Amino acid sequence: MVNLDQREDKPPWLTVPVDGLSKFAPRPTGAGETFQLFRDGEPRTRASLVAATGQSRSTVAARIDALVGTGLLGPSGEADSTGGRPPATFAFRPHSRIVLGVDLGAHHARIGVTDLAGTVLTEHQQALDIADGPDAVMAWVRERGHRLIDDLGRPAADLAGIGVGVPGPVDHASGRPISPPIMPGWDGFDIAGRLGEEFRAPVVVDNDANVMALGEHRAIYPSEREMLFVKVATGIGSGIVMDGRLRHGAQGAAGDLGHLTVPGQEGVPCRCGNTGCLEAVAGVGVIAQRLREAGVGDGTVDSLLALVRSGDVTTSQQLRQSGRHIGVILANAVSLLNPARIVIGGVLAVASEQLIAGIREVVYQRSLPLATEHLVISTARAGSSAGIVGAATMVADEFLAPSAIEALITV
Amino acid sequence: MVNLDQREDKPPWLTVPVDGLSKFAPRPTGAGETFQLFRDGEPRTRASLVAATGQSRSTVAARIDALVGTGLLGPSGEADSTGGRPPATFAFRPHSRIVLGVDLGAHHARIGVTDLAGTVLTEHQQALDIADGPDAVMAWVRERGHRLIDDLGRPAADLAGIGVGVPGPVDHASGRPISPPIMPGWDGFDIAGRLGEEFRAPVVVDNDANVMALGEHRAIYPSEREMLFVKVATGIGSGIVMDGRLRHGAQGAAGDLGHLTVPGQEGVPCRCGNTGCLEAVAGVGVIAQRLREAGVGDGTVDSLLALVRSGDVTTSQQLRQSGRHIGVILANAVSLLNPARIVIGGVLAVASEQLIAGIREVVYQRSLPLATEHLVISTARAGSSAGIVGAATMVADEFLAPSAIEALITV
Repeated sequence: MVNLDQREDKPPWLTVPVDGLSKFAPRPTGAGETFQLFRDGEPRTRASLVAATGQSRSTVAARIDALVGTGLLGPSGEADSTGGRPPATFAFRPHSRIVLGVDLGAHHARIGVTDLAGTVLTEHQQALDIADGPDAVMAWVRERGHRLIDDLGRPAADLAGIGVGVPGPVDHASGRPISPPIMPGWDGFDIAGRLGEEFRAPVVVDNDANVMALGEHRAIYPSEREMLFVKVATGIGSGIVMDGRLRHGAQGAAGDLGHLTVPGQEGVPCRCGNTGCLEAVAGVGVIAQRLREAGVGDGTVDSLLALVRSGDVTTSQQLRQSGRHIGVILANAVSLLNPARIVIGGVLAVASEQLIAGIREVVYQRSLPLATEHLVISTARAGSSAGIVGAATMVADEFLAPSAIEALITV
Repeated sequence: MVNLDQREDKPPWLTVPVDGLSKFAPRPTGAGETFQLFRDGEPRTRASLVAATGQSRSTVAARIDALVGTGLLGPSGEADSTGGRPPATFAFRPHSRIVLGVDLGAHHARIGVTDLAGTVLTEHQQALDIADGPDAVMAWVRERGHRLIDDLGRPAADLAGIGVGVPGPVDHASGRPISPPIMPGWDGFDIAGRLGEEFRAPVVVDNDANVMALGEHRAIYPSEREMLFVKVATGIGSGIVMDGRLRHGAQGAAGDLGHLTVPGQEGVPCRCGNTGCLEAVAGVGVIAQRLREAGVGDGTVDSLLALVRSGDVTTSQQLRQSGRHIGVILANAVSLLNPARIVIGGVLAVASEQLIAGIREVVYQRSLPLATEHLVISTARAGSSAGIVGAATMVADEFLAPSAIEALITV
């Protein structure tokens, strides 16, 4: 699938070159564009579409018929009328298709089915090591995915696509992980090819921080134009929203701050081969290990969470210090990106105020005044389903794009 | 004026809420949208516009009449025809308005008049210290601006607007410099208000790195979607192009990397009040001073340029080391933004390969493999007019936006 952000960013007259016209020529405003009007969920009459598009009544009627034929649009009760027979109204039917959202972490996996509006219909989660490798993990996705769809009683043909988030860098064009430090065996693995063949549906893959950023942005801050979402887990990564959209950079690596060097920490080795990486000094696994060495907990993330809940002082201090390390990197990111809001996600951020307190302490101290004057740093609110919602949103956005709908009608 | 990037980024149906329709409703595709088709400079017939927009022949004819009335569109020779009377063709007339572009540096100033396509019609430059303060500098802009416009024989009414680049952070909404370290006396000064009153035209203000980034992007790399432009002068700053557009961040401070801390240089004081800032260890003035202390040159930028031209070894070493410092900061920016191209601008980058060699050395060593695999680092090519072209482009983009053209017609 093509890069959603790139495509939607362009004005419509740049998206599809029309023969005989230059690249600036618009294509005729077709059914795919007309459908976009319905994405807010509001019902509309034919007359309101005539007024909105400036197109003829017969053209509008033909486009509505075509959209109703796809199942994406349907009749919707009666509209207000000044008398006589009420005009027919039509509305988006998000439930007409389903999407499989897959959120793969370092040590857990979540999978869920949503409708085209990102509403979760059913979900399942369990402990699963990404390090078990692609065969084991893909088998789990296949087995669980089919079962969730079957349990809903939906035919396979209803599946609009599969969205997958993975805990490592993903080449955005091919959807393959590229040298992912905490995903042994996954380098270059064709996730989209494997799942596409299995489910006979399009697949979109992105790294988990981008996917969670998208989920948080859509669910909680849809009107925030400048936002940085930071996931603090075994790995540390971020998703960058600028001018209202998730930005991927040239290869999809934008936001990849887990392996930036924290000054003064150059002695700490990282599994990526470098030293002093943010992940190596502030990742969740590292914190748990360091506490175990200090005689607190058993080095697992579960024990770390138990320590947080019990209010252990050593744990609080450790989290605060990790927050400061993250803050050093984020202070630079704030000067460079000038976000209005930073959202800190991942299980620890939600469980403890200490991590975010350490981040705030350093960011407000180190960033430029103009960039921090109105900056808000807060905890993620979309909850554990953010990864599933974000993954499903990637798919729905592609599936409902004007050109995709045109193609659906032509078929 | 509103934020261009924010506005153009939205699909058309989000830009102008129409009464009685939701925010997703499109407005009727009006003359402003129709005009966008002509911005590539190609002539078009009424028939081709009917085909392109799906609108009726009478609607298209009315819109063309309205656009011709503004002077922005005019008849353009004859189109190819299969016989009979050739149909009338119309084309964009970029020369119908002029734009004043002002490029203010720390120690120089450039001012020029362009047409709406960014072609420079006349320009003037001279040594001028921004530290002379707003009154002196604004007086110079006023005097020179009027003279350039007069010399062209254009009436004041032809001025579409004034674009200004300044060497410091600018609040994007108000166009005022905010605590600019190398612009004493300018903090909060209302540049747009002063020049708008003087020239009776809209004014757009941005920092010089953003303005030069825009100029370089439009003139040299118009199809590059992911680009970081870095200006190395007395100050050091950058302009960020992501998904094809300049990104400003929440307050317009995005790209402001001159005061990020270079690890290991924390002992070096910066005029901003902090220590170890990139500008304080790698800015052009600092390099010139350091060379003077080493007994080479007289501490001025001119002497530094003379040393570069003479191939002085101490100067080469100093530039290479400055490049390395810049490289440390850019390596982080590369991991965060994942640009496909970094362009290094400013007089030193163009004069010497040593600076860029130092930058390349560190960026390729320190950044993540996925982000540097296809990364190109090159020298700015738009030349000394880049600031004027970029400043004029900001204005032309605002002036030619659909809603601005609609307003022009209504008036």
